[in-house]
Amino acid sequence: MQLRSCEHLKLADWVKNNPPSVMEELLAGSSKEQWISLALGLPAAALFPTHFIEEAFEDVLALNHSVFQYQPPLEELKSHVKHIMALRGVQCHEDQILLTAGAQQGISLITRLLLEAQSRVALEKLAYPGLLQALKPFTPDILTINTHMKTGIDLDEVETAFKRKRPAFLYLVADGGNPHSLTLNDEQRKKLAYLAAEYEVPIIEDDPYGFLNYQQPRSPIKKYADDWVFYIGSFSKLLAPALRVGWIVAPQCTMRHLSSLKECSDINTASFNHHLVNALLNKNIFESQIQTLRNYYAKQRDCLVNSLTQYLTSDITFSIPECGFFIWAYFLEKINTSRLLQESLKQNVVFVPSEAFAVTPDSTIYNGMRLNFSYPSEYEIEEGIKRLSLSLQALIKE
Amino acid sequence: MQLRSCEHLKLADWVKNNPPSVMEELLAGSSKEQWISLALGLPAAALFPTHFIEEAFEDVLALNHSVFQYQPPLEELKSHVKHIMALRGVQCHEDQILLTAGAQQGISLITRLLLEAQSRVALEKLAYPGLLQALKPFTPDILTINTHMKTGIDLDEVETAFKRKRPAFLYLVADGGNPHSLTLNDEQRKKLAYLAAEYEVPIIEDDPYGFLNYQQPRSPIKKYADDWVFYIGSFSKLLAPALRVGWIVAPQCTMRHLSSLKECSDINTASFNHHLVNALLNKNIFESQIQTLRNYYAKQRDCLVNSLTQYLTSDITFSIPECGFFIWAYFLEKINTSRLLQESLKQNVVFVPSEAFAVTPDSTIYNGMRLNFSYPSEYEIEEGIKRLSLSLQALIKE
Repeated sequence: MQLRSCEHLKLADWVKNNPPSVMEELLAGSSKEQWISLALGLPAAALFPTHFIEEAFEDVLALNHSVFQYQPPLEELKSHVKHIMALRGVQCHEDQILLTAGAQQGISLITRLLLEAQSRVALEKLAYPGLLQALKPFTPDILTINTHMKTGIDLDEVETAFKRKRPAFLYLVADGGNPHSLTLNDEQRKKLAYLAAEYEVPIIEDDPYGFLNYQQPRSPIKKYADDWVFYIGSFSKLLAPALRVGWIVAPQCTMRHLSSLKECSDINTASFNHHLVNALLNKNIFESQIQTLRNYYAKQRDCLVNSLTQYLTSDITFSIPECGFFIWAYFLEKINTSRLLQESLKQNVVFVPSEAFAVTPDSTIYNGMRLNFSYPSEYEIEEGIKRLSLSLQALIKE
Repeated sequence: MQLRSCEHLKLADWVKNNPPSVMEELLAGSSKEQWISLALGLPAAALFPTHFIEEAFEDVLALNHSVFQYQPPLEELKSHVKHIMALRGVQCHEDQILLTAGAQQGISLITRLLLEAQSRVALEKLAYPGLLQALKPFTPDILTINTHMKTGIDLDEVETAFKRKRPAFLYLVADGGNPHSLTLNDEQRKKLAYLAAEYEVPIIEDDPYGFLNYQQPRSPIKKYADDWVFYIGSFSKLLAPALRVGWIVAPQCTMRHLSSLKECSDINTASFNHHLVNALLNKNIFESQIQTLRNYYAKQRDCLVNSLTQYLTSDITFSIPECGFFIWAYFLEKINTSRLLQESLKQNVVFVPSEAFAVTPDSTIYNGMRLNFSYPSEYEIEEGIKRLSLSLQALIKE
């Protein structure tokens, strides 16, 4: 029997415009040992609570065989999440909480809840590439909003967009935003909450870094408009990414549909992982773990600030982030950071150029770069920035 | 600030027709301890290799912290899967294997790869409800194919459908099909492979039970048309469901897009679980585990056969399945099994009535029921069927 080639397979239309993901390539690249990666948002592996995970595993095994069985979502873990949300000033109920396999699954589920093909969505001009990937199959109409370099998303533009264009949602990271690494103040949060409710446009508040505030922790937008905000939380940056446990706090009336989407994605059951995280949280380690992370990452951030000040100060401008894993820097001269990356790769240094974050071709900028300080060691941060400075000189000489 | 109710939230159109999932309710129901559940396809918890999982966990912890970090898919585990596929007679390459969070995620990813909104798909008239749930957001045009009670899917109808209607795919369970519990013979498999290649219609071969053949194991359709079959495998029924590890063996040319879909679903990384399953498989337990399961489930099947013969023989007809977790039974009289379920619930016995499997309103039948023999004990099987017989008498008397 002569079988025909699989090139004849008819795939969905969106696939035709599906270049390899930049982040995927970087993830593969940054695992090369000799490289200094300032690229991805990986947490510091040394801070994973490995010892407690081991203890938690023993606790889970002591329960009974059903921890390895298909199971409904774990109510006890939802209670922990409720408590954790209260630490951020958000009062919510267990029946608003959907346990997920991490924040990216939260994004994937909520977009499927809210979008039709070609729906309109509102995004800052630069945004988390994982969001764009999740949007791609919908081929959405993207409405772009400007971001001010010091203060964040332009609220007047948000209001105009909500009023005139009624997008299906606005996606936002309010704490240590990606890639700008800006954190909105309380007034901005309240205003966004007001706009969402007033114009009936839901906000997807993706919050991977909210607990990692190195100055004054703030309450998420969710606090100010429970019915209009889908809050996405995750233990990935707080405990360990490979456990793949996160959560959504949703408007209560959407929970049945979100549960159904979750069920058809993976049958609702990473119950073993849920039990493991639950057993970890039973040990009351959460708040001390957060404090450890804050202290550590604040030092890492300061190390990156010092290195940038020492080696690149006359070339770039940046703000010191109060939250998150990144510093966002702009070159003052017309430097193309994608070309700079090509130079820095020769020096085994990798970062993410601004081009990778553009949500539409028109919103592309070329003179920015996102630098991570959570994953590399202090030595690697300083050495990485030193080499980046050499790469810059090489680029300018070209 | 007066916030408006979330009833004003505009959700995607498909949500309007999204009744609660029957399976979800049954899962919640069947966890009530006093119930006898012949409903869901849960594996027997006593056969989970808990002791080996504990050892595997120690092995994983001994590796290094990076097992808890974001990581690319685990190549070693793909090698195990390649070996496992070879046990079924399928030669494949690691670069055709996508690791998933279980078979349902496989379904979810492949449907997103192949479907547009309103695409046409070919299905047997009764099918796995989890498939229908995954299809719902696409509001597809469903082309139904008849299934013969003894021999399975009508291949002439498949050919006509492929030739005249060119569906985006045919979905099929070839081994211990759900709900009919039929297993196709080798000629039928070869014919399906031929039709897929000839008419360029891919087949999604969902294979949760293929290793659990109690008579003569057969090779999947994938063996006969590598380029036209998306094979979905899972460790859920073979090791433990809550580990959430499964795989797809796809036509090689689609792998980049499938990886991208996987990444935007949950960032490709249940790496901890992948390491755990990998460490388990390193212990060479797979083949003996399969043998244990086969022996155990064959006895369970025989117990259900005997109970049906003893208590319901004059009322129903059924075939003895060579594979899988279920017996599919039809009532000879005009019995509505959804109404029978209402009666049996009074006796604390639950099963899945045929109505739950209809892929379109027109394909609904009312006189069938799916009975599970993998989860209940032998005592519960016999007691459950005894009570079902009483429920039937109560229904007839009404």
